[in-house]
Amino acid sequence: MRVGFIGLGIMGAPMAGHLRDAGHELFLYVRNRRPEGFEAATFCASPAEVAEGSDIVILMLPNTPEVEEVLFAEAGVAAGLSEGKILVDMSSISPIATKAFAARITELGCDYLDAPVSGGEVGAKEATLAIMVGGTAEAFERVRPLFDLMGKNVTHVGAAGDGQTAKVANQIVVGLTIGAVAEALVFAAKAGADPAKVREALMGGFAGSRILEVHGKRMLERTFKPGFRIELHQKDLENALSSARLLQMALPATALCQQLFNSCAAQGGAGWDHSALVRAIELVGRHEIA
Amino acid sequence: MRVGFIGLGIMGAPMAGHLRDAGHELFLYVRNRRPEGFEAATFCASPAEVAEGSDIVILMLPNTPEVEEVLFAEAGVAAGLSEGKILVDMSSISPIATKAFAARITELGCDYLDAPVSGGEVGAKEATLAIMVGGTAEAFERVRPLFDLMGKNVTHVGAAGDGQTAKVANQIVVGLTIGAVAEALVFAAKAGADPAKVREALMGGFAGSRILEVHGKRMLERTFKPGFRIELHQKDLENALSSARLLQMALPATALCQQLFNSCAAQGGAGWDHSALVRAIELVGRHEIA
Repeated sequence: MRVGFIGLGIMGAPMAGHLRDAGHELFLYVRNRRPEGFEAATFCASPAEVAEGSDIVILMLPNTPEVEEVLFAEAGVAAGLSEGKILVDMSSISPIATKAFAARITELGCDYLDAPVSGGEVGAKEATLAIMVGGTAEAFERVRPLFDLMGKNVTHVGAAGDGQTAKVANQIVVGLTIGAVAEALVFAAKAGADPAKVREALMGGFAGSRILEVHGKRMLERTFKPGFRIELHQKDLENALSSARLLQMALPATALCQQLFNSCAAQGGAGWDHSALVRAIELVGRHEIA
Repeated sequence: MRVGFIGLGIMGAPMAGHLRDAGHELFLYVRNRRPEGFEAATFCASPAEVAEGSDIVILMLPNTPEVEEVLFAEAGVAAGLSEGKILVDMSSISPIATKAFAARITELGCDYLDAPVSGGEVGAKEATLAIMVGGTAEAFERVRPLFDLMGKNVTHVGAAGDGQTAKVANQIVVGLTIGAVAEALVFAAKAGADPAKVREALMGGFAGSRILEVHGKRMLERTFKPGFRIELHQKDLENALSSARLLQMALPATALCQQLFNSCAAQGGAGWDHSALVRAIELVGRHEIA
């Protein structure tokens, strides 16, 4: 299949690599240096040319403004699309903006899938990403073979935007659960207990979670090399909070969690793994768990 | 073994029943009506008499003030204790107060174990409680056969008070994770996605937890019959927050979670299952997930 791919960064490059390895013909656009390993691909002069050459165009970009620009700027993807093609945005961006983007692409006679991923750099390299997809069932089925090359847990969540909504929901749960484990373990340490023993006592019970397992261990062992960087989680929570404002709803605990990530950034920790949220709690408590 | 048991409520009665069924000789004290099924037990005139008759005295009381009164009031347990006996407090109370109680009991030549439980009424009836124990290893080993009659997951966490600390940590994690799932699902619904589909997409991934599984389902199905009542979780978080003040540390997300439980209580929901925390988020967002 002729597949366009724009956004060959830490995530995008290995994802596009899996499509290349499966024999798909790639049409790429890069602003600066060409990534290694794509010598056989066609490098296009603009996003519009990528869209002209491919049946399916995949985006893997940092955030909402970059997606908007690549889609709708002069010589953007929209300028090169024609009826029957599918735009697949695998970036993690605003669900609200996504619905507007999808409406504009659909007007061109094309399909739009939002398909953000979870699983990070390791998941991208090992093709084990979780992929949450919004859009029509028909478009989902057509792109599914490509998703299966890049990920393991592929879910069709609902209509356009619902993939991004699920990703935001995922990041709310992950961030707030990290905060839950952080407060519990710092409290345990400050009260004089061994936080490692407390974590053990809690595992397997009702407090049990992947976060308690993996990130609880990181907090105890002080291994804050990412992993998933705090600045990326801040971006995802910003998408949650700005969407909440547009939707006119309140996310009080998410807002607090973002402030705690901000506090980590104030300590120089924007690049720490998100489990280092515990350092914000340690700071306000003046007590480290280990 | 001669076992004293004070606090034969919803939790205590089935717990004491397991000890009775295993053939232990029970010494009980009740303020009002005698519970059914304990016709063979010795009912004492005071907590002090319970302590005089038994080798091990177990308490299962509502909160810190009740434990303090039963232990140290006139004709309290302390007045009847003598060297070599063991006091086992299975109530969920303040870890800070527990350390003071343990010091006073230890001065009498006795051992003190704090052994709060998790698992609720069902766990008490089915003898599947998780039991988190603080105190000396020797006392823990002596009481262990009794714990094994009442629970399944019995952990010796550390020294006196550490069992209560683990219980508080458990309730922090459970409460805040309920809040995480609540904000994520209400957000998903308000953004127009199907919250049931979003929950499915999140399960098995990094956002996965027992709470997402069990309480996420309750939120979707609106089954808020307890379960574990909000007013009990409020009590546990009050123990977290008052301990944090004494320890001079900050638990910002725990404090927020307590406010959300308070908001449920303001809606008449003190008796709802704690998963109904979602109703506080729905109220501030003016949107119900189902």
